[in-house]
Amino acid sequence: MRMVLSVACSAVLLLTGCQSTSLPPANPPLTAASVLASARPDDWRRPDPQNLLCMDFGKGRVVIELLPLLAPRHVANVQALVREGYFDGLAIVRVQDNYVVQWGDPNAEKPELARPIRTAQRHLPAELEFRLPPAVPFHPLPDGDIYAPQAGFLDGMPIARDPKSGKCWAIHSYGMVGAGRDNALDSGGGAELYVVSGQAPRHLDRNVTLFGRVLQGMDRLTALPRGPAPMGFYEKPEDRIPIHSIRLASDLPESERPKIEVLRTDTETFRRWVEARRSRREEWFHHAAGRIDVSNIPIPVR
Amino acid sequence: MRMVLSVACSAVLLLTGCQSTSLPPANPPLTAASVLASARPDDWRRPDPQNLLCMDFGKGRVVIELLPLLAPRHVANVQALVREGYFDGLAIVRVQDNYVVQWGDPNAEKPELARPIRTAQRHLPAELEFRLPPAVPFHPLPDGDIYAPQAGFLDGMPIARDPKSGKCWAIHSYGMVGAGRDNALDSGGGAELYVVSGQAPRHLDRNVTLFGRVLQGMDRLTALPRGPAPMGFYEKPEDRIPIHSIRLASDLPESERPKIEVLRTDTETFRRWVEARRSRREEWFHHAAGRIDVSNIPIPVR
Repeated sequence: MRMVLSVACSAVLLLTGCQSTSLPPANPPLTAASVLASARPDDWRRPDPQNLLCMDFGKGRVVIELLPLLAPRHVANVQALVREGYFDGLAIVRVQDNYVVQWGDPNAEKPELARPIRTAQRHLPAELEFRLPPAVPFHPLPDGDIYAPQAGFLDGMPIARDPKSGKCWAIHSYGMVGAGRDNALDSGGGAELYVVSGQAPRHLDRNVTLFGRVLQGMDRLTALPRGPAPMGFYEKPEDRIPIHSIRLASDLPESERPKIEVLRTDTETFRRWVEARRSRREEWFHHAAGRIDVSNIPIPVR
Repeated sequence: MRMVLSVACSAVLLLTGCQSTSLPPANPPLTAASVLASARPDDWRRPDPQNLLCMDFGKGRVVIELLPLLAPRHVANVQALVREGYFDGLAIVRVQDNYVVQWGDPNAEKPELARPIRTAQRHLPAELEFRLPPAVPFHPLPDGDIYAPQAGFLDGMPIARDPKSGKCWAIHSYGMVGAGRDNALDSGGGAELYVVSGQAPRHLDRNVTLFGRVLQGMDRLTALPRGPAPMGFYEKPEDRIPIHSIRLASDLPESERPKIEVLRTDTETFRRWVEARRSRREEWFHHAAGRIDVSNIPIPVR
């Protein structure tokens, strides 16, 4: 089997900083795998189990990390919804090709059938922008961004920043999780969730609240059958995909918690990881792009 | 069911050309659907049936348009392979999440088992760049590109261009089809094909030969089970997905040919379509990006 189009972790790291399309010998020619292999233990972080959602359904488990800085009220509300068992027995209701997968209460708009919410809020004002705490530096990616003045990462999440105002907002890249809403900006809140499953739909940035990212299990969601109705909804109840449960990792027995480490994105190691993805120098590649878009940078998880 | 995250064809067309993030009333506020509704018959084109591949497999049909200008020798070779029935009974061998779907001969590297090629070439030099004919104008998109000096469309295909050299190359966006290869640039040729199924892997641009795009049936490919082996390969022969046949539409009886029209990309109507996608003004949107990336522009097919 020919190994075409390799994306395995063997990209050569370019230490020289050269971004031209000519290919001078790198010295030493580290690979992206070597970047990870040479990472120190503190280049990796263990997500706070309070901020890890474990969604179990028929295809297995999906693990989502929440980042309160992006949308503190939404994160607290999703945690409250999860703690009251709101999502247990609800369903994946929408799979739209190259766009989003969405889950929640299929009867949310039928008051007599909708699942009650006991301790959490049903609706919250959207949280579309945030500011970095003064102690948190921002390192913009080197090649800019089509949609925002700056793009980079915060604790593994892709974010944009306007250096004039200091405002930041989360970016709709593959795997990012947010709160669906109706037309009104205060009609979401976290009772209906979605994950980006296709080409980064950046037109959604600052229109809808993002607060987390899938760390494991995206492929369990993206291979689901596409919904036949407009926008990928499953029209027939029997087509919907039941969710067994969503739990906070901190509420699971130790033995059932995901054992996950995520590469930190505020380190020199991560900067080198980006550079290795930016200029691929494995034998397969004959042309190094020397450029990279924020949505094309995967965050290693182990 | 709340209609969150609508991407239906109801985006408001902004005729004023304003790309700021404030939302002045558009006059008249046409929708993207209206752009299509107001399109004249000659805004649409019928692809040449000689350049339409119909791939039939267990999940239905995938229709691929070939564009000889991108890679003339590869297109001719794929047409020859199809005409000799090369692909019939071969298989989809790789489904890598958020990356590519690939098909060909699982035994290509076993001389005693590999399917013979009778009239076509097994290998061809890569065709990574091309020039536009003098009579063909190029209209770069208004917001630039992270990876190339210019980006735009040629007959429905996303392409990049260097205005200094005049060289063009095809862009790895969702649905683009190319010829897999080994490490050597002359090890492809079209006997093993792939389609981009995830976030535009632009680092592949100018590394591998692209020559077409899926017009219909992408969702039949993207919902296939991900391959469990490295890079998404199906290791077990029984997991591979058999291809019944690939035919040129021109070789099918009239009744079996796809009835497809594609929106032309060299028209004022298309320019307005791009503007409608660039600044979404439907009621759901509260913030118009006013920017767009080449890989976020779908090409209407009817």
